[in-house]
Amino acid sequence: MHSLLTPNATHDTNLTSWVASANVPHADFPIQNLPWGRYRPLGDRTGDDAPSWRLGVAIGDYILDARAAGVIDTDDLNTIMALPVQQRLQIRQQLSDGLKTGSAQEKAWSKLLTAQSQAQMGLPCHIGDYTDFYTGIHHATSVGKLFRPDQPLMPNYQWVPIGYHGRSSSIGVSGNNFKRPQGQTKTPDAPTPSFGPSKRLDYELELGFLVAQGNAQGSCIALEQAEEHLFGVVLLNDWSARDIQAWEYQPLGPFLAKNFASTISPWVITNEALAPFRSAFTRAPNDPQPLPYLDGQQNREKGQLGITLEVLLQTAQMAQNNEPPARLSIGRADQAAYWTAAQLIAHHTINGCNLQPGDLLGSGTLSGATPHEAGSLLELTQGGKQPITLLNGELRTFLQDGDTLILRGWCEREGAARIGLGQVQATILPA
Amino acid sequence: MHSLLTPNATHDTNLTSWVASANVPHADFPIQNLPWGRYRPLGDRTGDDAPSWRLGVAIGDYILDARAAGVIDTDDLNTIMALPVQQRLQIRQQLSDGLKTGSAQEKAWSKLLTAQSQAQMGLPCHIGDYTDFYTGIHHATSVGKLFRPDQPLMPNYQWVPIGYHGRSSSIGVSGNNFKRPQGQTKTPDAPTPSFGPSKRLDYELELGFLVAQGNAQGSCIALEQAEEHLFGVVLLNDWSARDIQAWEYQPLGPFLAKNFASTISPWVITNEALAPFRSAFTRAPNDPQPLPYLDGQQNREKGQLGITLEVLLQTAQMAQNNEPPARLSIGRADQAAYWTAAQLIAHHTINGCNLQPGDLLGSGTLSGATPHEAGSLLELTQGGKQPITLLNGELRTFLQDGDTLILRGWCEREGAARIGLGQVQATILPA
Repeated sequence: MHSLLTPNATHDTNLTSWVASANVPHADFPIQNLPWGRYRPLGDRTGDDAPSWRLGVAIGDYILDARAAGVIDTDDLNTIMALPVQQRLQIRQQLSDGLKTGSAQEKAWSKLLTAQSQAQMGLPCHIGDYTDFYTGIHHATSVGKLFRPDQPLMPNYQWVPIGYHGRSSSIGVSGNNFKRPQGQTKTPDAPTPSFGPSKRLDYELELGFLVAQGNAQGSCIALEQAEEHLFGVVLLNDWSARDIQAWEYQPLGPFLAKNFASTISPWVITNEALAPFRSAFTRAPNDPQPLPYLDGQQNREKGQLGITLEVLLQTAQMAQNNEPPARLSIGRADQAAYWTAAQLIAHHTINGCNLQPGDLLGSGTLSGATPHEAGSLLELTQGGKQPITLLNGELRTFLQDGDTLILRGWCEREGAARIGLGQVQATILPA
Repeated sequence: MHSLLTPNATHDTNLTSWVASANVPHADFPIQNLPWGRYRPLGDRTGDDAPSWRLGVAIGDYILDARAAGVIDTDDLNTIMALPVQQRLQIRQQLSDGLKTGSAQEKAWSKLLTAQSQAQMGLPCHIGDYTDFYTGIHHATSVGKLFRPDQPLMPNYQWVPIGYHGRSSSIGVSGNNFKRPQGQTKTPDAPTPSFGPSKRLDYELELGFLVAQGNAQGSCIALEQAEEHLFGVVLLNDWSARDIQAWEYQPLGPFLAKNFASTISPWVITNEALAPFRSAFTRAPNDPQPLPYLDGQQNREKGQLGITLEVLLQTAQMAQNNEPPARLSIGRADQAAYWTAAQLIAHHTINGCNLQPGDLLGSGTLSGATPHEAGSLLELTQGGKQPITLLNGELRTFLQDGDTLILRGWCEREGAARIGLGQVQATILPA
């Protein structure tokens, strides 16, 4: 088994940090996590005079300036992503040693902390290409039923990790609000399409996998090496305009229904940090076994990620009344995904397509098997036919202007320190 | 009418250059063309010691170092692409003035020429995002017949400029040969898919539109401003593995069937240079008129591009016998495209999606109305059922290892100086 997937001293549950907020129960960023992000101090200076972006590591409620700490010598995460795995493991060990209780670095490093509340977060890296997969089999089945009642799951689904290319330029980071998209839509009974703001704006709960080292064009990444090429994981909201999608998607797939905005969480949880939360990849006895290039022992034993995912909605009315967001769903990634991240990487490169450090692979919507685990309003409302009632009595079929949608994620299991993915949120602005 | 679309003194048929090869009849790069490319001198030095890339303008058989000539002050075409139109028009005028017969710059600039035969061409710019459209209505109809005999043209086709996102990382420039892709395929009667090199590797004849100034996320580019956001045109070969495509493309569109390689020509023919070759955009009386955001007078009068496109194939056997490539098809872009470049830009941004300088928009396969104008082997061989016979007696249904596929393009009409797009070629290497 690869050392990347095996817990080591940096995962020890007894480890604590001299940054006190990292030791609070249920903290997202204890010393066992150490996620990467790109930040700059909040301040009055903007434009050319704005402070420059830095690479930081989240620890409790703070951010450590990793370059100033001497752990890395770049402000470009793509450079770190391209490093060999052994170097990534060494950097993690150095960060852990420096931040742990009793560390000799405490005095020096304590001057390099910025409170997260005093920082602006940017996109963590340059995302050259964005591919969105469709690994959520319960999602694929429920949505398939709405679009194609006669054949919800295509015959290729259980053989091919279905994916398509997305738009890189419109990927934003948590807090980047955006306008409701407008476009062409057509109801089945209308003779011609009409034009206007989308009436069926939805979210999609996904994990985003960021690529580490890439591969040369014409070469493949074998499944059993694929974990080395996964740098880390973020939360991803793949906003979708269902009415635009229904009219445009045949025969080449979704386009304007998706590319107005996609939003990711600012902290990249490294593959190293996830080692204690690996789970088995299994196939139901009646399902086809993966073809050899998508099958391997390491993937079967540890391919899945035991991440809990939660969706929350705060309407404008809730915000006005200081009410907290209401939970729309909660579920587990490894119970939703039909393919693992390693399989996505192996499949993506099997034809010689070259991945590059920082490329983003979306998991697809991770809906669980039961209705309350659904990762989109399309599913929760049965295609918009059955509005859901929120805690405060408001109804929703699709997102309304002023709605704030929040995704959260975390990993916890007996015998391991809980780590969080933080959250990604954005508010819908009027068209 | 926008000055960008109106011929001016730089298009004068009487203009000649002090670079003699630019004045030869049927030269691709006379002084009326002035396309941009990125080049470096051929030589023994490679790796870190290799000469750096420069921006050049093709003139006859030579390349002018545009920065050394003082016309621009960058080696990054994306920077030029982002300039306002008036500055682009001024740069063209300066280049024309300096390269014309009798110019005062002749002595100084003649030292800044590199023979094209002594230069390596790179990708002309950084392509952040690549979108492939599907504007060839004859192609969409013939291919639709093969995949969906009951409904070749989807109901949305005449309303929506259908497009999908492609892969940026694997876009190469003419001469970048690549390996035949491998992947999953499944014949209709086989119970399960099989794995191996593609047996139905094809080309697609397209134009590539490179974006000039972009738009901010959340804003739109109106149709009548869209021409300003088109920097120029290249030839684009959208290589396609038909057997992989048939098995993977439902429901989210083509993925591994396309992203192993796409190839563009090295010289960007500017929108300015194309002014004399604009033609009318029309709709058949029985076809739906475009929705208002896709309709405008300038687009109706001058939206189409009168470019002739030719496909040639040189097999390994032809190359060995020193036989020239054989023509597979010839046709006109403006008779194949159902939507104009301006309409693609307006549509792409109508939902607030942000375009960036250097983004590539593919036209889709530009097949003419008659069989010999088809822009892919899929069409020329009726879905692989009817091999074509080449001039030397060889048969082809799909591309074989060692085949070199060449696309060429040019513009000519009475009263204007002919300009060429050059060519794009690549050879298929074994899997």
